Amino acid sequence: MGSGWLATNPMKKISLLALAASAALSSPLLAQAKPEETAALRDAALTDSVAWDITEGLTTEIGPRLAGSDAEARARDWAVARLKALGFSNVRVEPFEVPYWERGEASAEIVAPYPQPLVLTALGNSAATPAKGLTAEVIGFDSLDSLKAADPAAVKGKTVFLTHRMAVTQDGSHYGTVGKVRREGPSVASKLGAAAILIRSIGTDHHRAPHTGAQSWSDGAQPIPALALANPDADQLERVLKRGQPVTVALKATARMAGKRLSGNVIAEVPGRDPNAGIVLVGGHLDSWDQGTGAIDDAAGVAITTAAAKRIMDAGQPLRTIRVVWFGSEEIGLFGGAAYREKHKDEKHHLLAESDFGSDRIWRYQTSIAEAALPAMKPLAAALAPLGIQPAPRNGDASGSDISEIQKLGIPVIELGQDGTRYFDVHHTPDDTLDKVDPAQLRQNVAAWTALLSVTANDPTDYGPVPPRAH
Amino acid sequence: MGSGWLATNPMKKISLLALAASAALSSPLLAQAKPEETAALRDAALTDSVAWDITEGLTTEIGPRLAGSDAEARARDWAVARLKALGFSNVRVEPFEVPYWERGEASAEIVAPYPQPLVLTALGNSAATPAKGLTAEVIGFDSLDSLKAADPAAVKGKTVFLTHRMAVTQDGSHYGTVGKVRREGPSVASKLGAAAILIRSIGTDHHRAPHTGAQSWSDGAQPIPALALANPDADQLERVLKRGQPVTVALKATARMAGKRLSGNVIAEVPGRDPNAGIVLVGGHLDSWDQGTGAIDDAAGVAITTAAAKRIMDAGQPLRTIRVVWFGSEEIGLFGGAAYREKHKDEKHHLLAESDFGSDRIWRYQTSIAEAALPAMKPLAAALAPLGIQPAPRNGDASGSDISEIQKLGIPVIELGQDGTRYFDVHHTPDDTLDKVDPAQLRQNVAAWTALLSVTANDPTDYGPVPPRAH
Repeated sequence: MGSGWLATNPMKKISLLALAASAALSSPLLAQAKPEETAALRDAALTDSVAWDITEGLTTEIGPRLAGSDAEARARDWAVARLKALGFSNVRVEPFEVPYWERGEASAEIVAPYPQPLVLTALGNSAATPAKGLTAEVIGFDSLDSLKAADPAAVKGKTVFLTHRMAVTQDGSHYGTVGKVRREGPSVASKLGAAAILIRSIGTDHHRAPHTGAQSWSDGAQPIPALALANPDADQLERVLKRGQPVTVALKATARMAGKRLSGNVIAEVPGRDPNAGIVLVGGHLDSWDQGTGAIDDAAGVAITTAAAKRIMDAGQPLRTIRVVWFGSEEIGLFGGAAYREKHKDEKHHLLAESDFGSDRIWRYQTSIAEAALPAMKPLAAALAPLGIQPAPRNGDASGSDISEIQKLGIPVIELGQDGTRYFDVHHTPDDTLDKVDPAQLRQNVAAWTALLSVTANDPTDYGPVPPRAH
Repeated sequence: MGSGWLATNPMKKISLLALAASAALSSPLLAQAKPEETAALRDAALTDSVAWDITEGLTTEIGPRLAGSDAEARARDWAVARLKALGFSNVRVEPFEVPYWERGEASAEIVAPYPQPLVLTALGNSAATPAKGLTAEVIGFDSLDSLKAADPAAVKGKTVFLTHRMAVTQDGSHYGTVGKVRREGPSVASKLGAAAILIRSIGTDHHRAPHTGAQSWSDGAQPIPALALANPDADQLERVLKRGQPVTVALKATARMAGKRLSGNVIAEVPGRDPNAGIVLVGGHLDSWDQGTGAIDDAAGVAITTAAAKRIMDAGQPLRTIRVVWFGSEEIGLFGGAAYREKHKDEKHHLLAESDFGSDRIWRYQTSIAEAALPAMKPLAAALAPLGIQPAPRNGDASGSDISEIQKLGIPVIELGQDGTRYFDVHHTPDDTLDKVDPAQLRQNVAAWTALLSVTANDPTDYGPVPPRAH
């Protein structure tokens, strides 16, 4: 097979004979990367410093990057400058508007029977309490289902406390189950007439670091204060309630919706040799929650995918265009993903792949591609195996948050899955800071993404059409 | 040898012959506990539930117990009720006055060059900023010595940032070295004309959980805002400073001294058979810092020592009186220890032992006793060895925070040393909550303390006089 794309690699010593052969065979069908070249690029990426530099720079020089905030705007400027400096083409911002929600302050104390403070924070789109605060009796529920089944007369005017247990899983799969408690609980409580809702943090840690996150008000649900208790505080409230006396909690929260603000996606490209070969889209999201500096969520994601794309760019022009997208306003409701779909839905996308699950080592890959294209994954499997990465047992589960909207058009997706064992210790908390990023595991990520791009940006096989997802 | 103290154990089946022998031989010199009886008490303590119940109850029903606060007063009432319910004698509060310091709120943000918030909290006795805040350029120092050597002209009007690295040690010994940075740094900075000082938390964690702690103003030092940065925030400020541009930080802190308040020591006793045999004092401190619920510091300490004393009490009257002291106002300056010394300095104390280093497993014991009494430690060594507890290599290092004042009178001390590997992850932070207490390790502590009391409260040997400490 030819080695067309490697022939343009300025870093490689290539014989004239090889160059001639390459020129003669430069059809897209013969563009596949040689396994040994992919392996060399992959292994070189194990010494990568670009991903660390981006993660360190973005979290240090910008810090928290709440969707629609001034900080997110500064982050876009930072991203444009950095992507240009790295040598990417067509670096630009694609702006869009978002509803702007401010966290404000939140405090709580048990008034009776055991006066003491509780640590909590507002969930996305939470309403404020009255300025003087809100004091109400607490009614506890141990599941969303038990709340849904509650007698409205028992809930009316009370502060609902909704608890649960989040399990530690390597693949993070329990987030789907307990995330629902956060996403739906506030609307359910509001419709039952609750004055406010306190939800145990969706997290696996034992710190006074409440996990924020998005929730939205379903039709007919009046916004109420919706707050996440830190896990030790939820433990405490459970113990206090179990003693059987009426429990009163005073809350103050100043969260509010504050009009429309500008957000945007930052885009950079490595133009491919064949403009008609379709785009390989990789990226993560630029915005973060405002409690931490968004290191694992998701500075690392944009850093890993950008570092890998740069390695492919520096190795020579790929067959297909690689488009790196640093999505805006993911956390508050996937606004960047929706804006991207709207603007780019008519372009040909070959493949989508997103990094938004931290930066611990990648241990498996998943696909959402045509069954007929599964044999074409063999070179990818071979390139990833030396990094300890195995294929998931079935096709159809790959996705990503920002790419989920455009994925609905039927575009193939490959997902490189990081080890999530400690991800939900930190996710959406003030503790999402640079020290949580392990440089060695970050480099393993870059190596895996470099292998992914080396194979897929040069593979002439079409991975579609994608059948509807199995679940 | 006689077994006098065990003869009164209502839980044991003892023959009439043994009872008669015990009565005949009930001289203090023949009162030593039989090794097998100590072993049985120790092993039974491995199923203890009293220590957990106290730790859980105090942290749940009272929560944070700042020295001089209403919560500390409620905690004294709670303690009296609990100690009476457990069957102790002479349960009482010995009140004293303390200066009352309120933490208030503290916030900070980097204004330039990279605007973002920092997480911090006030150190004990910190002054407030002006109500509108304090904005100043930051000058960084990597050690207390380098701050001491600074040119006052370079420091005047600036906010000092003092960083360091705390090492993880099993014995917590690095706290002495870095604790000095916190205790002395604010006065040094103030005398150099600093507007405020930010000190990297004295802690080994990586959380947005700043470690508070006591510091006091040396003669001539004007109180200034003195604040502890969480470790990730100190990392961040180091990175920002290293980029070389002038760094401006805006601070707000409302900490203040607020007059005098009542505090107190709570005391309970197991009266000994021989009122002249001297008191074995055990305990910990009832107050806590206000950020957490004071589970490892020091609900566990009062719980462990109380549970052990109850086990000895329930096993039969010991030779010597065991006095359990739940000291007040330790954290803000050892006020309870000073008040105890003042009130009880003329009483005969046989031995002092305090638990104030969390509740992870005890791995060694230290002594500060007469050299001549070292052979008398053999029964103790034998009783502790099955719990994995070894003697420290030299005599003279045993102490304790609350007991340090009365120890100065020359009273022997034995210290059971807990594993401190994870202690400074949590110490003085909001994270000092019940979930940090491992019930199994807590029970090992109770077993060790039960063995200690079984041996020492019945050992007729005098452990004094204590030579001056070697260091």
